[in-house]
Amino acid sequence: MIHVLFFLFASFLISTNSHVSAIEFCIADLKGAETPAGYPCKPPTTVTVDDFVYKFTKATPNIFNFSFSTAFIDQFPALNGLGFSIGQAELEGGAVIPLHAHPDATEIIIGGPGSVTAGFITSTDNKVFVKTLSEGNIFVIPRGLLHFVINNGKEKSIGNVIFTSVRPSVQLLDLALFGNNFDSALVSKTTFLDPEQVKKLKGVFKGSG
Amino acid sequence: MIHVLFFLFASFLISTNSHVSAIEFCIADLKGAETPAGYPCKPPTTVTVDDFVYKFTKATPNIFNFSFSTAFIDQFPALNGLGFSIGQAELEGGAVIPLHAHPDATEIIIGGPGSVTAGFITSTDNKVFVKTLSEGNIFVIPRGLLHFVINNGKEKSIGNVIFTSVRPSVQLLDLALFGNNFDSALVSKTTFLDPEQVKKLKGVFKGSG
Amino acid sequence: MIHVLFFLFASFLISTNSHVSAIEFCIADLKGAETPAGYPCKPPTTVTVDDFVYKFTKATPNIFNFSFSTAFIDQFPALNGLGFSIGQAELEGGAVIPLHAHPDATEIIIGGPGSVTAGFITSTDNKVFVKTLSEGNIFVIPRGLLHFVINNGKEKSIGNVIFTSVRPSVQLLDLALFGNNFDSALVSKTTFLDPEQVKKLKGVFKGSG
Amino acid sequence: MIHVLFFLFASFLISTNSHVSAIEFCIADLKGAETPAGYPCKPPTTVTVDDFVYKFTKATPNIFNFSFSTAFIDQFPALNGLGFSIGQAELEGGAVIPLHAHPDATEIIIGGPGSVTAGFITSTDNKVFVKTLSEGNIFVIPRGLLHFVINNGKEKSIGNVIFTSVRPSVQLLDLALFGNNFDSALVSKTTFLDPEQVKKLKGVFKGSG
Amino acid sequence: MIHVLFFLFASFLISTNSHVSAIEFCIADLKGAETPAGYPCKPPTTVTVDDFVYKFTKATPNIFNFSFSTAFIDQFPALNGLGFSIGQAELEGGAVIPLHAHPDATEIIIGGPGSVTAGFITSTDNKVFVKTLSEGNIFVIPRGLLHFVINNGKEKSIGNVIFTSVRPSVQLLDLALFGNNFDSALVSKTTFLDPEQVKKLKGVFKGSG
Amino acid sequence: MIHVLFFLFASFLISTNSHVSAIEFCIADLKGAETPAGYPCKPPTTVTVDDFVYKFTKATPNIFNFSFSTAFIDQFPALNGLGFSIGQAELEGGAVIPLHAHPDATEIIIGGPGSVTAGFITSTDNKVFVKTLSEGNIFVIPRGLLHFVINNGKEKSIGNVIFTSVRPSVQLLDLALFGNNFDSALVSKTTFLDPEQVKKLKGVFKGSG
Repeated sequence: MIHVLFFLFASFLISTNSHVSAIEFCIADLKGAETPAGYPCKPPTTVTVDDFVYKFTKATPNIFNFSFSTAFIDQFPALNGLGFSIGQAELEGGAVIPLHAHPDATEIIIGGPGSVTAGFITSTDNKVFVKTLSEGNIFVIPRGLLHFVINNGKEKSIGNVIFTSVRPSVQLLDLALFGNNFDSALVSKTTFLDPEQVKKLKGVFKGSG
Repeated sequence: MIHVLFFLFASFLISTNSHVSAIEFCIADLKGAETPAGYPCKPPTTVTVDDFVYKFTKATPNIFNFSFSTAFIDQFPALNGLGFSIGQAELEGGAVIPLHAHPDATEIIIGGPGSVTAGFITSTDNKVFVKTLSEGNIFVIPRGLLHFVINNGKEKSIGNVIFTSVRPSVQLLDLALFGNNFDSALVSKTTFLDPEQVKKLKGVFKGSG
Repeated sequence: MIHVLFFLFASFLISTNSHVSAIEFCIADLKGAETPAGYPCKPPTTVTVDDFVYKFTKATPNIFNFSFSTAFIDQFPALNGLGFSIGQAELEGGAVIPLHAHPDATEIIIGGPGSVTAGFITSTDNKVFVKTLSEGNIFVIPRGLLHFVINNGKEKSIGNVIFTSVRPSVQLLDLALFGNNFDSALVSKTTFLDPEQVKKLKGVFKGSG
Repeated sequence: MIHVLFFLFASFLISTNSHVSAIEFCIADLKGAETPAGYPCKPPTTVTVDDFVYKFTKATPNIFNFSFSTAFIDQFPALNGLGFSIGQAELEGGAVIPLHAHPDATEIIIGGPGSVTAGFITSTDNKVFVKTLSEGNIFVIPRGLLHFVINNGKEKSIGNVIFTSVRPSVQLLDLALFGNNFDSALVSKTTFLDPEQVKKLKGVFKGSG
Repeated sequence: MIHVLFFLFASFLISTNSHVSAIEFCIADLKGAETPAGYPCKPPTTVTVDDFVYKFTKATPNIFNFSFSTAFIDQFPALNGLGFSIGQAELEGGAVIPLHAHPDATEIIIGGPGSVTAGFITSTDNKVFVKTLSEGNIFVIPRGLLHFVINNGKEKSIGNVIFTSVRPSVQLLDLALFGNNFDSALVSKTTFLDPEQVKKLKGVFKGSG
Repeated sequence: MIHVLFFLFASFLISTNSHVSAIEFCIADLKGAETPAGYPCKPPTTVTVDDFVYKFTKATPNIFNFSFSTAFIDQFPALNGLGFSIGQAELEGGAVIPLHAHPDATEIIIGGPGSVTAGFITSTDNKVFVKTLSEGNIFVIPRGLLHFVINNGKEKSIGNVIFTSVRPSVQLLDLALFGNNFDSALVSKTTFLDPEQVKKLKGVFKGSG
């Protein structure tokens, strides 16, 4: 009886067309050419359990006392085609993540130990939505909106972050305005900032123009 | 023979199930509840040719010498489910559209009579991409990036604009920073702008805090 | 000068068509009718910062020593249209989450304090992919595949979980086979389990038939 | 031991948030308002096995000797959100399905007993792709292209048809040109057909204008 | 006059930009690298009518008296980007297709000659939805749910099957549990099956561990 | 202070994983292989402002007094993945764009100087929707429906056109029926046109068969 059953399944498989190589995932082949839908798939036969696992490389804190570790597609090819990616932030007491936006991703903060104050500005009517988040809080920052995160306390705070893009881009306001060769007169003209202010921050952020 | 053919088609239709009300479009019923995929469809039997036509309501130029007319879903329900919308901009000589971003839409400018200078800042590496556009030029501004448009000349310039959203939102930098109750100290802290600069522009844009 | 600038912006806004109510998010109105694309949007004018925040309700550990708290769309309407949801699992030492599948969601485990062993079975060729995960490890379990999680240690382990669905469903193998009125003979016939085994587990899981 | 296991699962379920009503399907509530993404879902608690089953209502053959039975969303609400629908065609010997296009659906014919000749015209370069199909043949007709099906034999032919739309629309060439009030002079002008030809077929298809 | 018209169209085409190679389909080039959105397109100029046609290769019945022929993308490259595929099943009297799930595809059975009994188990509340299908019945099995098909009669039954994936994967329960090196103790621990039962079926399905 | 701030940002960037090459756009590499989701992306480091700009190549008017210039993906690689493209039409007085359909794109006409009469035929019930459009009018022609455009006046009319496809295909009715080797008897049989009419137009459009 046992062997009958075994042969049953063997022949079940044989009775289907033979060259079907079903895949239920598409691990990115990062050496292939990226398309709007993602990278080519690594050949399924070469996929192992390690393709599904990633360990954050702990980033060292910067002068401003925070670090950010990423699990984007470039580090973790299993995210190919899934449409999101993950980060881990550690903010020492007093840390400030300055105003920035992710042009192509909604961000979700999952608060861990410690607490932070996060805020974003709506485009509908320029409302400022600010919230202090402690462990177990989730905060959604809609795609493309300017936002910031601050650790007002003295204790370190840690959080996981989800982005709805496999490789979220970041537009940091100060770098966009002052950290490049954006013509200073044009900056003033399109932002109404005083020329002196522009000049000063161009100096800080090593911009020219 | 003729009648045979006619009956043929009559019966062709009859031979299909009778209560199929095929629709090949979904005009928004703006009184219905909006969903992430758009508005409910107006009943197909009530749709007329006028549902497919829209005429721009000419906006009057503002003090800064430009006007912007929109064909967004709220004005033009035929855009329901199509994923884009249209605008028409007229910039008098010297007009400036200040730095802003569309968090949920790529913008495409189709230059008409006259010329403008448009620019955006990439998030990848803060490059400033600026171009002077004359009639027949098309310019793509990727979703969510800060950009501006200026008419440096003396002649009026006109252009059509396409957005990849049925109702693009706008985050105007100055209004986001200074036109609301965003706490001034927090603005300085997250932008590195001098408190005096923040105070001054809060005054200009009628912000508080 | 200042007032000129202010009027500029006021008129900028006035110069656009007046009844545009741009929204850049769609908070679910859970009282509305769900569609394949999600719930209707809560009116934007009634949205506050609290709509973007959720705090996990800590679940009490079950007999098997684990608890699972969810931030699915039913608890957190801000997820509407975003295509994913979040959970938090706490596994006491020895806890076992039995074999199950999420028919409509890829699952991503973000390992926190402690460690767990997780595994899934591929459908391609029935490979068993098992991995022990410690803090900072991420593990991707492709959509629809049978998987389990075990805490083999003595220490509690905690992790965040992401699902690529706003409300992931769960097919728990034992409940699917034994916790309902699935005819026992049919279970045996379609699984090759011995009738005695089926009868025994029907008893355990309160099934009938 | 057995009871322990049972309680385990009961508490497993209880340990999750209580008001999650996971659904893994969305049966259309046809009385609700259709959106670009489909109909609202029937409440999951009212769904039974019969919602997943449909039986073709056999259509009677028309004068031209074919019948077409449909399983579109209007007849079969389980197709809601799935993006395709099904038909069954029976063509008696000599039957002709005249030139038509499905503006929103690719069509796939799965040949059953008998044989038919099907053809479509590419838009790339106006190639005519014609093929005689017998049982077990599959034929793909790309979305929106003019095509026809003929049973040149004497035997009845039967086939299943898949459309990549829950409710494919049909533009039948003769009805579009001659079966309505399309101004005859305009028809001639935009098709280069002789006015006499237009007049004649307007008569056949009961058009006016 | 005739020649005027002809030149009209020739120049119509010439008046458009010359290197547009419009394609309205994307036949898979199976030698290219697969991406999450499908395979690269075969060059349109090399496409012929045969690319749109497929004939099922009749599979021989297995010991268990059923055969399954597939038209998946690997056999039929015209399905590229269409999001579904097709199969043909023939079940001799008494045939059983054991419990399995398609992690990435909804399955639709279109009953042909003969009859079968098909069933699936919901994940919402573990309901068992079973139905006997005869010719002309359609049955929808939602994505990822465990299901089975049995021919209880003596007559052969035939059916077409649609899957909402170009290459549906299959997770056959017995092979997932017993046909691999899944550690036997772990199987027992995560399924509550008795160790003897696991051992017995490991023998049947040639598993190890 | 200034330098502190600068180092802050330098280290901010350094503290993220180093090989992230975020891109917020995907300019087509037209030499790469097209997929259902578009072309591979040009390497971001080689992208310049000119990749985002296109200038229409003015097409010369044809005998029928209209010209059509295109900004499809083949001319303007920045459209990759955006799902639409643009055209510019110029119709001299009396110009006629004959009946045709775009199988894969909704078309939107944005009327410029002059006026045109445009019309399409619905598939629902063969209604003829005709409208005269002047400057500032927008007209939506749903995907796949037969339509025409005529300049009934004496003045030139100009308009921009949007298509919801990066490379819309065109099925021109006369070329589909008469400009190829479509067997004449088959044309008559599937359109009910008189054989003489078919023969005559086959002559005009240089068809054979």
